Amino acid sequence: MSDALDLFFAPRSVAVVGASSRPEAVGHALLKNLLYGEMHGEDRGQGFQGDIHAVNHKGGEILGQPVKKSLGEIGAPVDLVMIAIPPKYVKSVIQEAGELGTKAVIVISAGFAEMGDDGKALQDEIVSVARDFGMRIIGPNCLGVMRPDTQLNASFGAGAPPPGSIGLLSQSGALVTGMISYAQREKFGLSATVSLGAKSDVDDQDIIRWLGGDPQTKAIALYVEALHEPEAFLEVAREVNASTPIVAIKGGTTAAGAKAASSHTGSLAGASAAYTAAFAQAGILQAHNLGDFAGWARALATQPPARGKRIAIVTNAGGPGVLAADACARHGLELAELSDATMKALDEVLPSVWSRNNPVDVIGDATPERYRDSLAILGQAEEVDGVVLIMTVQAMTAPQETANAIAEAVKADGWDKPLIGSFIGLIGTDVGSYLDAHGIPEFNMPEQAVSAMGALVRRGAWLRRSEAPEAGLERHPEPDLDRAAALVKKAKDAGIANTDLALAREILEAAGVRYNRSATAKDAEGAVKEAEGIGYPVVVKLISNDVIHKSDVGGVVLDLVDGDAVRAACASIRENVEKHQPGAKIDGFTIEEQVKGTEVIVGMSRDPGFGPMMMVGMGGIFVEVYKDVAFRLVPMSRRDALDMIDEIRAQPLLDGARNRPVLDRDELAGLVVRISNLVEASPDITELDLNPLVITERGLVAIDARVIVGEPPAAQH
Amino acid sequence: MSDALDLFFAPRSVAVVGASSRPEAVGHALLKNLLYGEMHGEDRGQGFQGDIHAVNHKGGEILGQPVKKSLGEIGAPVDLVMIAIPPKYVKSVIQEAGELGTKAVIVISAGFAEMGDDGKALQDEIVSVARDFGMRIIGPNCLGVMRPDTQLNASFGAGAPPPGSIGLLSQSGALVTGMISYAQREKFGLSATVSLGAKSDVDDQDIIRWLGGDPQTKAIALYVEALHEPEAFLEVAREVNASTPIVAIKGGTTAAGAKAASSHTGSLAGASAAYTAAFAQAGILQAHNLGDFAGWARALATQPPARGKRIAIVTNAGGPGVLAADACARHGLELAELSDATMKALDEVLPSVWSRNNPVDVIGDATPERYRDSLAILGQAEEVDGVVLIMTVQAMTAPQETANAIAEAVKADGWDKPLIGSFIGLIGTDVGSYLDAHGIPEFNMPEQAVSAMGALVRRGAWLRRSEAPEAGLERHPEPDLDRAAALVKKAKDAGIANTDLALAREILEAAGVRYNRSATAKDAEGAVKEAEGIGYPVVVKLISNDVIHKSDVGGVVLDLVDGDAVRAACASIRENVEKHQPGAKIDGFTIEEQVKGTEVIVGMSRDPGFGPMMMVGMGGIFVEVYKDVAFRLVPMSRRDALDMIDEIRAQPLLDGARNRPVLDRDELAGLVVRISNLVEASPDITELDLNPLVITERGLVAIDARVIVGEPPAAQH
Repeated sequence: MSDALDLFFAPRSVAVVGASSRPEAVGHALLKNLLYGEMHGEDRGQGFQGDIHAVNHKGGEILGQPVKKSLGEIGAPVDLVMIAIPPKYVKSVIQEAGELGTKAVIVISAGFAEMGDDGKALQDEIVSVARDFGMRIIGPNCLGVMRPDTQLNASFGAGAPPPGSIGLLSQSGALVTGMISYAQREKFGLSATVSLGAKSDVDDQDIIRWLGGDPQTKAIALYVEALHEPEAFLEVAREVNASTPIVAIKGGTTAAGAKAASSHTGSLAGASAAYTAAFAQAGILQAHNLGDFAGWARALATQPPARGKRIAIVTNAGGPGVLAADACARHGLELAELSDATMKALDEVLPSVWSRNNPVDVIGDATPERYRDSLAILGQAEEVDGVVLIMTVQAMTAPQETANAIAEAVKADGWDKPLIGSFIGLIGTDVGSYLDAHGIPEFNMPEQAVSAMGALVRRGAWLRRSEAPEAGLERHPEPDLDRAAALVKKAKDAGIANTDLALAREILEAAGVRYNRSATAKDAEGAVKEAEGIGYPVVVKLISNDVIHKSDVGGVVLDLVDGDAVRAACASIRENVEKHQPGAKIDGFTIEEQVKGTEVIVGMSRDPGFGPMMMVGMGGIFVEVYKDVAFRLVPMSRRDALDMIDEIRAQPLLDGARNRPVLDRDELAGLVVRISNLVEASPDITELDLNPLVITERGLVAIDARVIVGEPPAAQH
Repeated sequence: MSDALDLFFAPRSVAVVGASSRPEAVGHALLKNLLYGEMHGEDRGQGFQGDIHAVNHKGGEILGQPVKKSLGEIGAPVDLVMIAIPPKYVKSVIQEAGELGTKAVIVISAGFAEMGDDGKALQDEIVSVARDFGMRIIGPNCLGVMRPDTQLNASFGAGAPPPGSIGLLSQSGALVTGMISYAQREKFGLSATVSLGAKSDVDDQDIIRWLGGDPQTKAIALYVEALHEPEAFLEVAREVNASTPIVAIKGGTTAAGAKAASSHTGSLAGASAAYTAAFAQAGILQAHNLGDFAGWARALATQPPARGKRIAIVTNAGGPGVLAADACARHGLELAELSDATMKALDEVLPSVWSRNNPVDVIGDATPERYRDSLAILGQAEEVDGVVLIMTVQAMTAPQETANAIAEAVKADGWDKPLIGSFIGLIGTDVGSYLDAHGIPEFNMPEQAVSAMGALVRRGAWLRRSEAPEAGLERHPEPDLDRAAALVKKAKDAGIANTDLALAREILEAAGVRYNRSATAKDAEGAVKEAEGIGYPVVVKLISNDVIHKSDVGGVVLDLVDGDAVRAACASIRENVEKHQPGAKIDGFTIEEQVKGTEVIVGMSRDPGFGPMMMVGMGGIFVEVYKDVAFRLVPMSRRDALDMIDEIRAQPLLDGARNRPVLDRDELAGLVVRISNLVEASPDITELDLNPLVITERGLVAIDARVIVGEPPAAQH
């Protein structure tokens, strides 16, 4: 299929069906953009150099081009057909294009799926016709496609970006327009832009695969509200992202945003947690605002990933250096501790009043040479993983010469670190990005530069991330997934939706989860015997069908450390029952291993699009109030599970703060993978919670669980 | 003193001492900026229109100006003298200026306090000379002052901003330069800029007071790393902020940033928590990046505060509307639920396919009139507190006409809501801010617009914030601050630094804190008697000098609900001791009210600059791991205390999630104010913690406490 996609980006000929002479019409803008490269252009030399055909049933001439009355009148096959006519006529044009051998069509027209059922039916029809001809469709309801390198502007956008190395793929045409304007202003370039619109045929994963194979594209920027085929997307994105970094921004990550998205696309915005999980599993960097979205893409498209997170800041002014240092801390970056050798080398090239510290303050009167020499030294410094370079314009500052000197340092042999610049205070409208001209992203504000460096650090960490070995799986009993699945099926067949604790426990024990030990006894001596088997401390609880709230009558005694204490507890329970509820029958006692420690939660829920999704986080009130949890999609790897555990903010608690037992991360990761495997093997499980799961000296012990059995929700697109 | 400050901003004459003919010299830039308004200007009509004098001991002519050899040679008093000569000559020039009657001096030269002790001594000398003459000094080591309205550019900055209504005050000259460049690009204006440098004399609060009285200044933007006189600052800022909103960014809010700040200014950066507390108490909005800093100031300087947080988004494209909705949720804003009347009115002016929802999608082909009419309706809508307006440039979009139509709607009678715009995809270098020309801040990215709206919402909330009534103070026993202070003094005199629980308890009880009830008894029957007095459930604990870790020998029994249980517990403890530590002497038992519930913490620490600072937050591991705490400075009001409680993220826990007792906010606020009063009355208390303080059905009960007594740390500037 990638052959057909090639035709969208490198057609020999393009036709605009619905070309119009009215300046305000979309069909006019399409033709103008093809002819002149941009809507306000007048130079045919700046436009697409292949064959351009205007088609309108009225014929005539538009913008000096003879207008054909139909595609057939062109008399030659057309590689790419763009359609901007009322929806009801689109199908016949596609039919005609198909018959003439066209394999690539962009439907600009709106009025399809977003209009409701009738529109959706019309859309399905045109896709069906296209498929009969082996034709691919982008759209409907989209802005179009651009390939700046060949001056192909097959869109009705107001301008075109400089050629460059970021491939932009967006569900929203307006975001493409915005990015182009930003690119023009900041002087960075794009390799291709695609506005996907309703995604009736060509989908995110098609374009991502194509961009991944495009030698011009060094990074992919993706705006998405809802993926139509999440699994297929994830598979392609994971593969492409291994070599071409992807930055994504998801519209509709909040309830308000999701509602807005579904209102304008007519489809449900995917659940934010599932998207975040999918992006994390594929190594896609998720931005939460357009500034980071563009900034990270610029950095990833032009700079190498960082080997680590130790950053050096070079600046000729204090304030911006301070703000950059603050931003480093906020983005999880560290200021590199400069070695003695580095300090000594810097002493040689900097005035005596330099900061002798990181940020490296090269002083307000810094010359281009001073910047160059400092960079050369930091390039050699083994303790520095990346450099953020700040220049503020002061009396003696020479921005262009400084940019050139910086580029010189970075081109030298052995320079292999990322560099991000922030030139501050360049007055005038043509503020141009001096460093961008050298392939170094330059930002107006130091925090933006640091945020972009953060993307390079995370990208580096992702590339170094290897699959974790299987160690740890053995720390849970061998699971018997068949038995667990059979139990689930039995519950479903019996019409049990919400399993009780005993059944949930049986299912999860079969899946390899360890519970706290427990036993029952008829009397005190029996209880002592069981307690000895379980190991102290234990909890003793009343068994009585007559007593509903055992705690209320003193029917639960904690912290029993030996046989005498168990005996006393049994006696005390008998006394309490006699006193609070005389005549209640005592059937015996439950003796439970008393489990204390930090509580975590492991859960599974189903996303309508992505399917089952695992959750790991802090248990108890933590999970409810601080939402300190991480998500990944099923199926998942041990490495994914370890990443989830790393995402938990309350790391000190996992690491045994306050003399708590320390979490065995391998064990928890193994348990999460097992539950993930269980869920995959048993699609009847619609929800599952192990809460709490207690971190003890002897490993993880489950206390409570919930398994919901039923029909998985139908996929919603 | 404000008379002297007037001379910095509205001098009739200015002299540059150290004027230079070398283009790269600061003394050249200063003269050029005065003459032409900006460094690259050539039009004297764009420069300062008062008298300009160049002074250099060499004499001659520079830039067509005759050079005087000394200030005295000018032959007339000079309102403002700028000095850019080597530090050692500065003092004599100041002496001369003083003798000639000058009251305002800007010392541009560096080489003073930031160079160490000798420099500091030199700086103190010049300030001392200046004070003898009643003269004010800005600097040393600063960029200077600008007053764009009168084309006064008394700085060596590379450019000057358009005149406007934001007063900018910065410890860093580079930040002024950056803001000017940003203002030029985004077409917003400044009323004044001041770079304070070393703040040897004129300090933040002086300028803030002056800007507060300046009719041109509608909002103040402050960059600060360290305040020299925090209390004086706070007093002035609080007063000014009541009528002129202040936005602040603090450099050095992280350990890395603070280290960088102290490295370049030679003074300690203030503790971040104390600054955040001070800003909150004064109602100053604290930004954490330069984008918000500038954006919030633009919004506050031009738009009214919002009456509430219900926002309407108007957009002609889906994607940016979705991102704006997401951003609203992230900034604590709500999307207004449009009333039936509003919907109906919008139906009248919008095409039938409009979103019928908020965001109000006016559709891609929206005309200026459609924007105007929609705005007019939202202006009338009682359910809308503010409007974020998004326009993306599409085929038919007319940015200038749309901006004019929007301005028309906003100028109509009855429009009293804030409006923030985001025009996306304006291609070209002169991207100009169409709306800014009408006094409406316009941003490139919708999230920036929403962030700016958030500032207006918070400003509105601050203005509506009234002092809380004193209700609630009576819920703690009447405090006896004299007795508490006497106990503290006694501890100090006795050389007790870290008080034990008993003494801490005594001090805090005198201050009105209620503890869990407790008593001691010699034997089981005595314990039962005390338990009856305390009320069940109780905890019984072993008293024994021989046993160190009581829990380890089974010396603590919880959950005792009646007399029999207490008897059994005493027996059990005797048995346990006999078993685990035979021969240990049992001195008796402590009987404590067993207190269960959500734990909060109230604490006090001392900031080197701001002095005592209160903390309130979630107790136990929460405070350590999630840092869910809020700070305010002593002295504080009940309203401040209530604000602190509101800042806690774990609100559901305070509100009784999971059937926990509900916090009485008035009671906690009252307690915080009492501790604050105690701390104010007893400066010997250097640190204090009530942790945990338990929320019970009967109110707040303290379980543990720590009071550290000693010398308060010396103030560090």
